[in-house]
Amino acid sequence: MNQQVEPIQRMADELSKLPGIGRKSAQRLAYYLASQPVESVRALARALQEGREQIRLCTRCFNYTSEDLCAVCKDVKRREDLLCVVRDPRDVAAMERMNDYHGLYHVLHGILSPMDGIGPNDIRIRELMDRLQTGQVKELILATNPDIEGEATAAYIARLAKPLGVRVTRIAHGVPVGSDLEYTDEVTLSKAMEGRREL
Amino acid sequence: MNQQVEPIQRMADELSKLPGIGRKSAQRLAYYLASQPVESVRALARALQEGREQIRLCTRCFNYTSEDLCAVCKDVKRREDLLCVVRDPRDVAAMERMNDYHGLYHVLHGILSPMDGIGPNDIRIRELMDRLQTGQVKELILATNPDIEGEATAAYIARLAKPLGVRVTRIAHGVPVGSDLEYTDEVTLSKAMEGRREL
Repeated sequence: MNQQVEPIQRMADELSKLPGIGRKSAQRLAYYLASQPVESVRALARALQEGREQIRLCTRCFNYTSEDLCAVCKDVKRREDLLCVVRDPRDVAAMERMNDYHGLYHVLHGILSPMDGIGPNDIRIRELMDRLQTGQVKELILATNPDIEGEATAAYIARLAKPLGVRVTRIAHGVPVGSDLEYTDEVTLSKAMEGRREL
Repeated sequence: MNQQVEPIQRMADELSKLPGIGRKSAQRLAYYLASQPVESVRALARALQEGREQIRLCTRCFNYTSEDLCAVCKDVKRREDLLCVVRDPRDVAAMERMNDYHGLYHVLHGILSPMDGIGPNDIRIRELMDRLQTGQVKELILATNPDIEGEATAAYIARLAKPLGVRVTRIAHGVPVGSDLEYTDEVTLSKAMEGRREL
């Protein structure tokens, strides 16, 4: 016999397209779903489909939202002179968890990567420049990841933004809180030394 | 701001109900799905919902199928005098991958577990006995897991089946092929010694 029950195979095929879910996990999940009440699988399917259909990009900062403006942009208490540039909406969520930043965001939806053929026109850099043109933003905080592409993207944006008279800053690189010096890589350590501050 | 975009939160909530997917993975998956084309998320949702709706239990052996009889039961080349009892449909898939067993199956859909309040009437034991009553089965192979509950269930079924004149066997316990004696637990080793065979 051919091993697989067709509907289970179809579920597993679709599930295995998700990141971090291999063939075996997908099979296990498919068998699990097969054993669950039809109603709870319907609820899952509905949440995924309707959820995805409701997601839009904020017309101002390109964060995810289900409305026209995202929750941050709609919040009148946020400082409009502070703009934090991040790679994707997940980073906004991370920053918001910190509960310590009260400015606005701009989500690039990608990062410059010549290797992958991603240039300035493929991410939301033009829209960022449009926002800066209004003169409302006084400080632009570049919070792309501290890796090669993140640094290159930050440098690129800084070069464009500075002539507009905006103060451009970059988040600090250093030793993560709670980590161990012994296990910190040399580049991070050297950045931490370089960025040392007077107490 | 409250951190989460509502539709993403809904997706993550549903995904985190799946086994082996924690809160963090569910979040990551939800953000991933948010970044995918609506059409591919619809395809996933459809595969899950329609897949689940199509799954039925084989009326004879209770394996998963999308028809009345499962692929094994429909296959006229299978030996009808050989019946292998397993805990759930996943185990049928595992046995079939072996490509070496040509009898039929009976899926219990559970295992006796007094601790969890699962008794003989909660799993498909009565249906198994009905099948044995026909006298067609000559050998009943008990392939429940080699753990306490699997052994207890096998012993229970053996006690019921033997009076019907059926030959009752249990799959061998021993050292897994490709494993290392040094890392094999003592119970398994002792079972392997006990079950040794003449060469």
